[in-house]
Amino acid sequence: MTEALAAANTAWILAAFTAVALMVAGLALFYGGMVSVRSTLNMAMMVFGALAVVGVLWIVFGYSVAFGDSVGGLRLIGNPLEYLGSSKLLEAPAEPGLPPALFSAFQLLFAAITVALIAGAVADRMKFGSWMLFAGLWATLVYFPVAHWVFAFDSADGSVQGGWIANSLQAVDFAGGTAVHVNAGIAALALILVIGKRAIFPHAPRPHSLPLTMLGAGILFFGWFGFNAGSALAAGNSAAVVALNTLAAACAGICAWLVVEKLRHGHATSLGASSGLIAALVGITPACGAVSPMGALAVGAVCGAVCCLAITMKFRFGLDDSLDVVGIHLVGGVIGTILIGLLADPAAPSGATGLFYGGGFGTLGKQTVAVLAVLAYSFTVTWLIAKVMDLTMGLRVPADAETEGVDVVVHRESAYFLESIELAEGKVEPGAAVVTAEVITEKAAAPATT
Amino acid sequence: MTEALAAANTAWILAAFTAVALMVAGLALFYGGMVSVRSTLNMAMMVFGALAVVGVLWIVFGYSVAFGDSVGGLRLIGNPLEYLGSSKLLEAPAEPGLPPALFSAFQLLFAAITVALIAGAVADRMKFGSWMLFAGLWATLVYFPVAHWVFAFDSADGSVQGGWIANSLQAVDFAGGTAVHVNAGIAALALILVIGKRAIFPHAPRPHSLPLTMLGAGILFFGWFGFNAGSALAAGNSAAVVALNTLAAACAGICAWLVVEKLRHGHATSLGASSGLIAALVGITPACGAVSPMGALAVGAVCGAVCCLAITMKFRFGLDDSLDVVGIHLVGGVIGTILIGLLADPAAPSGATGLFYGGGFGTLGKQTVAVLAVLAYSFTVTWLIAKVMDLTMGLRVPADAETEGVDVVVHRESAYFLESIELAEGKVEPGAAVVTAEVITEKAAAPATT
Amino acid sequence: MTEALAAANTAWILAAFTAVALMVAGLALFYGGMVSVRSTLNMAMMVFGALAVVGVLWIVFGYSVAFGDSVGGLRLIGNPLEYLGSSKLLEAPAEPGLPPALFSAFQLLFAAITVALIAGAVADRMKFGSWMLFAGLWATLVYFPVAHWVFAFDSADGSVQGGWIANSLQAVDFAGGTAVHVNAGIAALALILVIGKRAIFPHAPRPHSLPLTMLGAGILFFGWFGFNAGSALAAGNSAAVVALNTLAAACAGICAWLVVEKLRHGHATSLGASSGLIAALVGITPACGAVSPMGALAVGAVCGAVCCLAITMKFRFGLDDSLDVVGIHLVGGVIGTILIGLLADPAAPSGATGLFYGGGFGTLGKQTVAVLAVLAYSFTVTWLIAKVMDLTMGLRVPADAETEGVDVVVHRESAYFLESIELAEGKVEPGAAVVTAEVITEKAAAPATT
Repeated sequence: MTEALAAANTAWILAAFTAVALMVAGLALFYGGMVSVRSTLNMAMMVFGALAVVGVLWIVFGYSVAFGDSVGGLRLIGNPLEYLGSSKLLEAPAEPGLPPALFSAFQLLFAAITVALIAGAVADRMKFGSWMLFAGLWATLVYFPVAHWVFAFDSADGSVQGGWIANSLQAVDFAGGTAVHVNAGIAALALILVIGKRAIFPHAPRPHSLPLTMLGAGILFFGWFGFNAGSALAAGNSAAVVALNTLAAACAGICAWLVVEKLRHGHATSLGASSGLIAALVGITPACGAVSPMGALAVGAVCGAVCCLAITMKFRFGLDDSLDVVGIHLVGGVIGTILIGLLADPAAPSGATGLFYGGGFGTLGKQTVAVLAVLAYSFTVTWLIAKVMDLTMGLRVPADAETEGVDVVVHRESAYFLESIELAEGKVEPGAAVVTAEVITEKAAAPATT
Repeated sequence: MTEALAAANTAWILAAFTAVALMVAGLALFYGGMVSVRSTLNMAMMVFGALAVVGVLWIVFGYSVAFGDSVGGLRLIGNPLEYLGSSKLLEAPAEPGLPPALFSAFQLLFAAITVALIAGAVADRMKFGSWMLFAGLWATLVYFPVAHWVFAFDSADGSVQGGWIANSLQAVDFAGGTAVHVNAGIAALALILVIGKRAIFPHAPRPHSLPLTMLGAGILFFGWFGFNAGSALAAGNSAAVVALNTLAAACAGICAWLVVEKLRHGHATSLGASSGLIAALVGITPACGAVSPMGALAVGAVCGAVCCLAITMKFRFGLDDSLDVVGIHLVGGVIGTILIGLLADPAAPSGATGLFYGGGFGTLGKQTVAVLAVLAYSFTVTWLIAKVMDLTMGLRVPADAETEGVDVVVHRESAYFLESIELAEGKVEPGAAVVTAEVITEKAAAPATT
Repeated sequence: MTEALAAANTAWILAAFTAVALMVAGLALFYGGMVSVRSTLNMAMMVFGALAVVGVLWIVFGYSVAFGDSVGGLRLIGNPLEYLGSSKLLEAPAEPGLPPALFSAFQLLFAAITVALIAGAVADRMKFGSWMLFAGLWATLVYFPVAHWVFAFDSADGSVQGGWIANSLQAVDFAGGTAVHVNAGIAALALILVIGKRAIFPHAPRPHSLPLTMLGAGILFFGWFGFNAGSALAAGNSAAVVALNTLAAACAGICAWLVVEKLRHGHATSLGASSGLIAALVGITPACGAVSPMGALAVGAVCGAVCCLAITMKFRFGLDDSLDVVGIHLVGGVIGTILIGLLADPAAPSGATGLFYGGGFGTLGKQTVAVLAVLAYSFTVTWLIAKVMDLTMGLRVPADAETEGVDVVVHRESAYFLESIELAEGKVEPGAAVVTAEVITEKAAAPATT
């Protein structure tokens, strides 16, 4: 690779990384808008908090666990000492290529977003401190290893060994259907089983701000192009096809969800449009490099329609998957990963051949194994983490916090003061003017009239 | 072109495409904030819905109609069969160059946004199903052909023929003054004429959330750099000049609108700052590659000032252009396209010479013909689509929906639950705990006090 | 440099510039969410207004003052005539390289954002017209010269001379710790001293919308990667390291602030998470190219912790730094710039060696001189501008505007109409239906129930 070609690839991955960075705010709003006005900030804090904790761990040892040379050649975990502290990442690559520091930064965001996805399942009831610890433990024990399995490819010269799903099984997962969405989705299920339902379940507060949720969905849509097309790690035809397929699936997903809910409930909703968009983006994540544009429409439409039906299953099973993390990320992730086995077009960048293209059951089998492995590992370890935490420090806010709202009880904040002005207490030291410390509330000024 | 140079151009267009993707959320908020709290979601849904419908059609046949080889060499429409289903777009270009899949994805967003722009004109009163059908029909019958006229350039070797405005007339339209803004603006006018005014016109609900509108404007400002500088299709000096000119115009547009409204009404408003920004961005869209930075200031200032005056014309004509789509996109688009005839600087990337630079009336004439052609075609076909739809399925929501609000009546949703918590009904299957199905409303927790 | 390498660098800087453009909306929301509902729009308008005024001046002469050849070789100010009107920027560079038009556009946003940062210090009490004039004067007399000192490097062949901090002192300031954050922070202090406190100080209205503030912080986080990694002006290893360091610092900053406020006040807040994020980003701005990833964690953590303590100092000194511009941008900027003297890792892109890496006190001394120079110059000139303006046109809104809210009194707008619909008066000309001109307020439709 020439220096100029490496720079071109670097330019795109810098931009893709930057786009993914906005997904933090996008997810905070997407989730934050869907909960009640009493726990909006808590939901956003769980997303920002996941970024903070996972990011620090990633710099210290996470990158090394995920992308270090496989310990013992077992392809299960990277060497945690190889990039300990990340200072090795200051060096430019020996041959022109993508700078390791950039790859690490890009993958840090994948780790943080995957952890943050789980938060939606436990809205309104998890202790913030426990969430922060859970985020760190889960990243360390679940995400970093699974990222090694799926995302760590062997080096071209074979001197560095990566994970088993990428290299031994060779399942197709372009941008994280298994490592990100199936992983977060099944972890959400395990965490729900331990933490239990909200007191009001099966009722749930209506979304307090659907415009925030739509904005969040729109931001996630934007960032997803960095996520998926950035996963090509180059500015070439693969990234281009991935972008087009991701876009095609997103459009089909909105259409499918709206049609299904219109037929079932009589109304097309904004929550449905947002959910269909995200469900399709989840489904196309593993498949974006493996299918044709018409295949992408199919993946998006199937995910939009099936997830629209799947999210009602929580009532059947009595599981309080509050913001449908299982119903969308687990279901959508499984569908997208498995559909590769059917729809993979050999002319697409991944080069796999699905059943419908005469490829037999080979691809389908590999995809299924990859899904099952992540399901089993992530569920087991997540359940253990959650159970141990529940028995020791506890996972759940006190009952009054659930009733009065996590924002006020845990964070001592309220999301909005729109109808009145409330003054916060200030402190002036001796020597300055004396002021009262009482909190003053007054009605906001009447709106202007012409 | 070397492989590395092609990759560099691809890197920028991938990033530009991604930036444009955020304009979907930006437009949803920009419009959604300007309507009342009763139809916020409907407005956002019209934007998301336009993306969904237009995107699916684009993958199936839209790209082919817009960018296929001109049927019969007439330069009016591309061959709809050439890229049917888009699977041909999986292939990398034969020679190093921009991947066709990326160009298609980029142009898909142009199509979707152009359709979505129209929605602002018919706020509060259009049936959602009719809007979705209108979006599909209008894209097919108006946008795809006009995009062919304006954006489809002949291939370098002449083997593929493009549209007449780009190649025969050779009018200058860098990023879509005619195909996007004049097109959407005049279509909005035609649709208004058929669908009629709101019952309360000439009154209108005040914007329910100006912060959302400002956020939307700020997001559109961001995405517009992808839109305009991405239209250079290369990471070179043209894109750089376009970026600077777009930015210059935007700044001048804000200043001009604020000054005009301050002089006329005595107050500089946030709605004015947002509107001046958008008006200037509309105007610079065709001209961004044709003028000098000082010329860009002039384009922005003229658009900001004139559009500020133009939006009051709807009262004179009794036309309920609810969110000023005609007043900003039609007027701004015409101004920007025509001003090229005066201000085009031959040193700028487009290479045209305007009247003020000694270029005579040639450029001015071409620009005028392009505008008139799009005006006539778009108005006629849009009016026919709308009229046929109005006479068959109907365009307008029932009167009660207009009074009670489209969100509740059509989508069964309300944008916000900020002051109270309302529980949505959940359904638990037999075997699980019995719960009441009644909807419970209670006041939100009192804000925290220190 | 080959044409392809120049194009790759251009691709990234185009994308970085575009990302920075979103910071305008980000800052408007970050600040706008923190003020009361009575001055939300005014705060956002100060940000948009700063962009508009500074942008126009930049095109006319600002770029020339900042990046023109140093007048008289004194390295204090660029030649204002060299790029007057910016038309010279249409030309592509003689040798392959970054297009000057792009560099100018990128730096225009730096100028606009720096000015806009100051606005947060004078929330709720500054006349809008005075702010717009102040923005123009401050940019001209303070920012453009200081940008010359810090950002204008000598040309490779020495034919064009830049500023003294960059070239003579050779202090390290990768992306603007001194020129942007110390500069805006100390200017905020000077302006506060002249304009005085709000009537209610030391009380302050609680933030009216923390979700907007978190969204704003998340958008700033996104844009900051364009800001910092774009300052590498190339798509190579430097930008990659900068991206990773910026991300690392951000994560550590959130953690540190949350820990400190939890220990001091017993609660981790969303305002704290947002503030810690921004404080760390401020601190890493000068240092992002000079430290290792572990060093970046340290910079972020120190800034998060110290700024969390620093923002309470305003009560001790009786200074109404309304949104903590001094406490975060001045303090964070000074910390980040000075810490380079301790933590600079010679293996990092900047190549400087800090005290802890055996580099002695040399780097520390240079950094301190740079900080002191900007502090002294910016404070003095800002105070003079503010004082002259205060004595002539006045800086402060009338007392009633402070009580009733700047939005209604100054801009004749209210941010939200969420609970009721209010109709704006429309005007229909003779011949159209007669309508009443009265303003009608009615309660918004009751929310939907299932």
